[in-house]
Amino acid sequence: MASIFARIAAGEIPSYKVAADDRFFAFLDINPVAKGHVLVIPRAEVDYIFDLDDDTLAGLYLFAKRVARALKAAIPCRKVGMAVLGLEVPHAHIHLVPMQSEGDMDFRREKLQLTAEEMQAIASSIAAHFE
Amino acid sequence: MASIFARIAAGEIPSYKVAADDRFFAFLDINPVAKGHVLVIPRAEVDYIFDLDDDTLAGLYLFAKRVARALKAAIPCRKVGMAVLGLEVPHAHIHLVPMQSEGDMDFRREKLQLTAEEMQAIASSIAAHFE
Repeated sequence: MASIFARIAAGEIPSYKVAADDRFFAFLDINPVAKGHVLVIPRAEVDYIFDLDDDTLAGLYLFAKRVARALKAAIPCRKVGMAVLGLEVPHAHIHLVPMQSEGDMDFRREKLQLTAEEMQAIASSIAAHFE
Repeated sequence: MASIFARIAAGEIPSYKVAADDRFFAFLDINPVAKGHVLVIPRAEVDYIFDLDDDTLAGLYLFAKRVARALKAAIPCRKVGMAVLGLEVPHAHIHLVPMQSEGDMDFRREKLQLTAEEMQAIASSIAAHFE
C-alpha cells in the first residue's frame, strides 16, 4: 500500500502544496512546529533517506534549497532549519522550518493550531516565491 | 578570521576526525546528544547551508550519506537522523545522530559526558567503516 506521503504527492489525499516537479513534492506539515513548517519528499517511495540513490538524494536537496529560498522570502526568519527524523512515517521527508531561534526546531514542543485559511495563505505565499 | 570549523578541517584545531576528502570533513561533535553524534562540513567557509552552490550542496549530502552509512555500521541504530540548525557557529554543518527514538534528536537535552578515550574509540570505529 502507498504511504500517506506518496498518496499526498499523487494528489489522492489533499495537502497544502507549496511546490512540485516530476520527482519531488513540498507541502505544509499539518502539525507545524512553526509557521511555514514544510515537508519536502521524493515521489519515489523510499523509507530511509540514505537509501535513496545518489542522483535522487542530491536532487531532493537541490529541490529543498529552492523551497527554502521561497520559504525565507515568504516567512521572514534568520535561517531555514532542516531536519530528517523519519521514525514515524516510512517515506523519506525533510522538515524545513523558518527559525528565529534554535528552539524553533524542537519537534516535541506544542504544535501550532492554524485554521485552514491560515494554512492556505501560508502555502500560497511560499508557492508564489518558488522559482 | 577563519571559523572554528574551518580551522578544524584545516587541522589547526584538533578534532575526532571520522572522514575527509578534498572538499568535505566529518568529525565528532564535542557535545554529543547521542553516542556517535557527527558533524559534516564543507571545507569552504559558507555560513548558511542554502547559500552553498548547487554542486557543493549536492556533494555535501552525498558525502554525508557515506558518513551516515559508516555511522550506522559502527553504532547500531534504527536510522541516522540529520539536522541543520546553524544559528550558533557561522559555518554550514550537518548534524548526524544515530537514533533509537525521535527524542534522540532533541538538541536541548543534556549532553553526554564521554572521555577522550571513548571519543577516540567512536571516531576510529566510524572511520573504519567509511567507504
